[in-house]
Amino acid sequence: MYATPMTQPFQRVLLVSKYHDPSVLPGLRQLRDFLLARDMPTFLESQSAADIGDSLGLPLLSFAEADAGSDLVIALGGDGTLLGTARQTAQSGIPILGINQGRLGFLADLSINQINEALPPILEGHYQQDLRSILHAELWRSEERVHTGLAVNEVFIHKGGGESMIELQVQMDGRFVYTQRADGLIIATPTGSTAYAMSAGGPILTPTLAALLLVLICPHTLTARPLAVADSVEIVARLTASRQPAALSLDSHCSVPLEIGDEIVIRRASCAARFIHPEEENFFQILRGKLHWADSPGTD
Amino acid sequence: MYATPMTQPFQRVLLVSKYHDPSVLPGLRQLRDFLLARDMPTFLESQSAADIGDSLGLPLLSFAEADAGSDLVIALGGDGTLLGTARQTAQSGIPILGINQGRLGFLADLSINQINEALPPILEGHYQQDLRSILHAELWRSEERVHTGLAVNEVFIHKGGGESMIELQVQMDGRFVYTQRADGLIIATPTGSTAYAMSAGGPILTPTLAALLLVLICPHTLTARPLAVADSVEIVARLTASRQPAALSLDSHCSVPLEIGDEIVIRRASCAARFIHPEEENFFQILRGKLHWADSPGTD
Amino acid sequence: MYATPMTQPFQRVLLVSKYHDPSVLPGLRQLRDFLLARDMPTFLESQSAADIGDSLGLPLLSFAEADAGSDLVIALGGDGTLLGTARQTAQSGIPILGINQGRLGFLADLSINQINEALPPILEGHYQQDLRSILHAELWRSEERVHTGLAVNEVFIHKGGGESMIELQVQMDGRFVYTQRADGLIIATPTGSTAYAMSAGGPILTPTLAALLLVLICPHTLTARPLAVADSVEIVARLTASRQPAALSLDSHCSVPLEIGDEIVIRRASCAARFIHPEEENFFQILRGKLHWADSPGTD
Amino acid sequence: MYATPMTQPFQRVLLVSKYHDPSVLPGLRQLRDFLLARDMPTFLESQSAADIGDSLGLPLLSFAEADAGSDLVIALGGDGTLLGTARQTAQSGIPILGINQGRLGFLADLSINQINEALPPILEGHYQQDLRSILHAELWRSEERVHTGLAVNEVFIHKGGGESMIELQVQMDGRFVYTQRADGLIIATPTGSTAYAMSAGGPILTPTLAALLLVLICPHTLTARPLAVADSVEIVARLTASRQPAALSLDSHCSVPLEIGDEIVIRRASCAARFIHPEEENFFQILRGKLHWADSPGTD
Repeated sequence: MYATPMTQPFQRVLLVSKYHDPSVLPGLRQLRDFLLARDMPTFLESQSAADIGDSLGLPLLSFAEADAGSDLVIALGGDGTLLGTARQTAQSGIPILGINQGRLGFLADLSINQINEALPPILEGHYQQDLRSILHAELWRSEERVHTGLAVNEVFIHKGGGESMIELQVQMDGRFVYTQRADGLIIATPTGSTAYAMSAGGPILTPTLAALLLVLICPHTLTARPLAVADSVEIVARLTASRQPAALSLDSHCSVPLEIGDEIVIRRASCAARFIHPEEENFFQILRGKLHWADSPGTD
Repeated sequence: MYATPMTQPFQRVLLVSKYHDPSVLPGLRQLRDFLLARDMPTFLESQSAADIGDSLGLPLLSFAEADAGSDLVIALGGDGTLLGTARQTAQSGIPILGINQGRLGFLADLSINQINEALPPILEGHYQQDLRSILHAELWRSEERVHTGLAVNEVFIHKGGGESMIELQVQMDGRFVYTQRADGLIIATPTGSTAYAMSAGGPILTPTLAALLLVLICPHTLTARPLAVADSVEIVARLTASRQPAALSLDSHCSVPLEIGDEIVIRRASCAARFIHPEEENFFQILRGKLHWADSPGTD
Repeated sequence: MYATPMTQPFQRVLLVSKYHDPSVLPGLRQLRDFLLARDMPTFLESQSAADIGDSLGLPLLSFAEADAGSDLVIALGGDGTLLGTARQTAQSGIPILGINQGRLGFLADLSINQINEALPPILEGHYQQDLRSILHAELWRSEERVHTGLAVNEVFIHKGGGESMIELQVQMDGRFVYTQRADGLIIATPTGSTAYAMSAGGPILTPTLAALLLVLICPHTLTARPLAVADSVEIVARLTASRQPAALSLDSHCSVPLEIGDEIVIRRASCAARFIHPEEENFFQILRGKLHWADSPGTD
Repeated sequence: MYATPMTQPFQRVLLVSKYHDPSVLPGLRQLRDFLLARDMPTFLESQSAADIGDSLGLPLLSFAEADAGSDLVIALGGDGTLLGTARQTAQSGIPILGINQGRLGFLADLSINQINEALPPILEGHYQQDLRSILHAELWRSEERVHTGLAVNEVFIHKGGGESMIELQVQMDGRFVYTQRADGLIIATPTGSTAYAMSAGGPILTPTLAALLLVLICPHTLTARPLAVADSVEIVARLTASRQPAALSLDSHCSVPLEIGDEIVIRRASCAARFIHPEEENFFQILRGKLHWADSPGTD
């Protein structure tokens, strides 16, 4: 449905590790051993090496060099690790395979225990490609662009550390949408619709839907509803009131303080995240598993 | 928390069977054999016997005679069976123990596989008593009371088989609350708050909270919210508009057609349902299990 | 944003009246007089004439002849009248202007009191065109297509007049999505996202988003969420369980009883509804007005 | 319903002003002139005087002296001003009348424009008394009580200025309820159920319901639901995980940073807030007005 079957074998692998979590070390070694035993040229991402304080005996490669030096990124961690890797490699379009040590994620759907059976066909080029849209956010202050960034899940404008709601005025392609007071506003991709936006009461958007999702956190107006719009629009959210420094976050990272009058311009980035999966995976299967749709409470 | 430890042994047991489900027969025989082996005088409820077409060799007892002839009802089935048994025995106040053949319910929290270990202490009087409030509903038409009934979970006023919303005017203790157009209105007990009202978006009320819960199904007014009120109030819901025959249901049973102008008067019944449980059970434990509160979706 | 400015003047107008509502008669006469005073050839739709028992002195034209005999439909009524007119004229693609006697709707955004100022520029060709996707539904039983129909707002599969949930198995383009037990399932267009689907807790989809929206009514599974998918998919909903005759409704009309095993196949129709508006109207403005987004409750 | 008619005339009035808002000055003078013209002994609250930099020619009285020196507090401002006044005077039980300059609130339901007609009967003792429960919160760290406070609306435990969810373990009367990861947890009174808790998706609790309401903000577990419990319970919420300093807020004030392991103990305070209203006011009338329950969107 949302994925394209591919047939191109991989030549050089870049390993990326979950940030600041020593528990991934055995899994990294297992991956390294598996790849080297297959004579696969294998690199370790520089920040990962610095973070774990060990190169694992592998040559290092930075994210900036990833595209030139490798043709597959294998990220060991959960969905959070995959999001970060996707933001770092978005410009290059290099494919990313997520491998999870704990329970499976929406994106990292392969367990470290499955690599002996699952990795060989993928390395030989049998996998599904799963392109996910990315958001590009710009922060404008007094007609100057003071910050830019990418988000695979969501752009989040929120009240920061204070206790008072913020007020946001939202426009789409120059048209006024609404002024709302709330704890925050999530602008999510379909990928992000099953992450933070879902906790905030948003709907699920299938990965192939060319849409953006706006979800307010604790809106003051009781008739506010999540809003799905075509992802070709340019969204401008202007901070019109706040008693304390509000904040802009991208994928729950890189919090930037906001001032009244700041404008955040959000549009779909020209690049996309390129995740790959074993052949038989699909979105609804993951959804059913993650949301326990086989289960149900209540009376018999 | 919500239950009272008891110490009185039981003398005579009345068995009740899930309605119209032959799969309970082996479980009924297992219960009968277990009780007779302990020399416990045991009866089968008359309707259950008629339904399964077999007395199991036990003397029969009707619900009307239950109180005089027995001091414990053991109902084999799920929460639905327990609700029906509770409505039938509400006036007598006889305690009810639910035993489930399938997965556990909110009320029937003992499995048929556990009876060898769990039943003896209960029969000897070691159990928790769990009193649940019951709703009494009266249907008034042209100043005449044309129907009355009891509900352990909820009274439900709805649009019946038609496609148009109904309009209801609700009063509490003579004060006007609201006029709402919706597919229906649920008036639930705390017990019912984890049943149909929960599917409709209602909150959970703990069993000991002396409250009633009003939840509208698909309300036309977007600011409508579930409403919890003290269970000492008398609620009057008047059907003020409907294009088709609306309907009144009690615990999803006994559907009664409604006419415009009909008034449904709902108040807490003077009687209560008396469920019993093994000593160590509690409401939050059941809730965590039924709602999978140990589980969670999303990114790591 | 969602509308295209047009410049083509209209030549012949077909008047359509709200069904079964004599209160529209003065408005119809006012519209007739206004059009005849401008020497506009004007027809009355045949069913409308039969319904009000009067031709208003106008020549009659059936919906089947609308396209050949007229180039503009003016419908007097609310959004419901517009939905019916759109279903009747969908194949022809004739533009529809909605005029409201009561409060404004999402689609009928022109009041009868405004026609002296607002109608002339529209008739001269200054208006916005607003294309809305339509759903095509087929009911299959035992490999036979037993019913087909169109819906501008939503296809609704529901429990009919009974009290028990139904069970539906949903597939998209041949992929299994979920099996859910619920009171019903709404499959809505973006237009329908602000109608019944919104009462059921669904998000708002802007009219230009190429999406369908699935919203369950009172789902048994608490993790069920509204689902937005690309409108290029073919949805198949199969009734897998129901204790009573379930039903299929299109725009809250034409209820068709369902049997277990029935399959409802839903896809975007090849035709679209063509509504027109005065030049300055836009979706977000209507939304803000209808949802009172200027207002808010709570503390100051 | 929720209010008691009273008949005791008032002798001495203490005026309280909205904090940090010079726009209340004309209203304060109008109130002063009205009261002095009736020979009512009138005081200005000390902090209010300091805040506006003017005593208005009135003798000053601090909140601590309020009970001894006056028998009625008149607070000019919105619901926020009333909440603060109620926390300050909770121990004394002195009645509070709220007068609003802007649009009416849930608690301050009298407009400054109405005082000529509405105040005289109230001062003569014709009013309704409206007792609202108050929460008492204690913060325990390493077996030491490091903070205490009162809240009329809600106790709020939240993630502070960070971007990561916090994890809370909640107990009631020593029983484990749940461990949840979320942006925050609101524990609200019935009064607070129409404030922040409502923005977060909570139900409405009528003021006389002896209940507390727990509402999670953006819970990670999709089956989390608002929970209403008897207000006789003691709730202990323990911060079990947080990547950044979490925070405790009372009525959106007095933010206190939290450390992992901190326990917040919440129970109904022994004192209550004593608001008064003109005789004819009632909760449902305010609710209908604030939530626009006369209005509704959608098709006709």
